[in-house]
Parts: sequence; structure tokens; C-alpha cells
Amino acid sequence: MKAILLYGHGARNPEWAQPFHRIRDAIKARDPKALVEPGFLELMRPSFEEGVACLVDQGATHIMVVPIFMAAGSHVKKDLPRLAADAMDRHAGLLIELAAPVGEAESVLAAMADYAMRAGPLVG
Amino acid sequence: MKAILLYGHGARNPEWAQPFHRIRDAIKARDPKALVEPGFLELMRPSFEEGVACLVDQGATHIMVVPIFMAAGSHVKKDLPRLAADAMDRHAGLLIELAAPVGEAESVLAAMADYAMRAGPLVG
Repeated sequence: MKAILLYGHGARNPEWAQPFHRIRDAIKARDPKALVEPGFLELMRPSFEEGVACLVDQGATHIMVVPIFMAAGSHVKKDLPRLAADAMDRHAGLLIELAAPVGEAESVLAAMADYAMRAGPLVG
Repeated sequence: MKAILLYGHGARNPEWAQPFHRIRDAIKARDPKALVEPGFLELMRPSFEEGVACLVDQGATHIMVVPIFMAAGSHVKKDLPRLAADAMDRHAGLLIELAAPVGEAESVLAAMADYAMRAGPLVG
């Protein structure tokens, strides 16, 4: 069964995980059976490996990792392939594939441009 | 005149700036007269102050800063208000306002969810 792992950097402030939960919720709203979990590089849980294990426990055999990053820096180009290889070593028969970061998707950039053009100031 | 500053973290790899240029281009495609420039916290130019100065040189009197961040961590909550205050001290009569980060915008999160659901593997 195919699943999605939302790969993020992680941060000390737990609020930082909110967009990941909101993206997961939006995917679940479109497809209630979708298997989708976050997985963080550092500072935050679930870790990448914990996210993978959680998806495997739910029956995932093929995980598409979607980097929730603006661009492919070293956390996407270097750290992520290593994390994916380690996870495939650990879970026999599991295929992990890597998508381009969200910040490279035309539709996401267009949504950011639209937002920037109409954004108002934060209150308070 | 109103302008937009796309505030980003910055990185050592110059490719990292590409999404910022693509968002700027998308805004210019929608409104060719729009004043919009990137401005980075560190590691990359233009700096926040250089981006502000560039907009002021083009006639900006009111800058809406849009953080191109997934969430409001310390670079948005602590560094950005200080950068904005310093820039207003430096440029008399300039108003700088701060918008919520793109990663908190519902439409951006929806675009990310759609992308994650149909993302294919990177080739090569």
C-alpha cells in the first residue's frame, strides 16, 4: 500500500509542527484512507524513522517522501537519501521514493505568490 | 507606494534562492508594476536591509514583509521584528508591516497537500 511521509526539518518550538498536521489533515480530508505521517530530521518527533515505522505498521509498502522544504539544500540532498536508505535496510520489502521539495512545485509557488499579493499585517 | 519583501532564511547554495525568484516572477506576471524583492536573514544576498533599500529606491513607502517560512520560529518572531525596526529607523517615513508566514496560509497548505498527493519520484 502506498503512503506519504511529510519530511521536515523540525524545531524546538512544538508549534512549528502545525503546518505538517494541517497538510496531513488536508490530505485526509481529500482521501480519508490515505496513509500520511510527518517525519522530522531533528529536534522534533516523530523522527523520520518513527514516521516510516508508523506508516509500515499501518500497512505501507511504498512510501513517497515529500520534503516540506522551500528548496533542496543539504537536508534534502544529503541527509534525506541517507535516512531513506537506512529505513529501507531496516524494513525488508519497503520501497521509499523521494519527491522534489514542495517549494519547487509550480502550483505551490503560485499559491505563495497569490498569498503574498493579498497578505495583510499580523494583528497584535 | 506599496511593495512586497519576500523574507527568507538564506543558504550557502545559490540555488536555494530560486523559489524566491520564481515567486517574484509570478507576482510580476500578475502585476507588472508590482514592487517585489527578496531579502535574506543570512548567508545570501540581498540581505533584508539590501532588499528594503532596493524597494525604497524604486519608490516604496510601505513594505509588506511576507516570510517565506513554513512556520513562525525564532527567525520570524524574533529576528524579523528587529530587522524591520532597524530598517524603519534607517529610512524616515517608511512603514514596514509583517504578514504571517506562507506556511500558515490555508491556500498554500492546500496546494502543498495537492502536490503531496500526486508527487512522483525525482528522476536521476
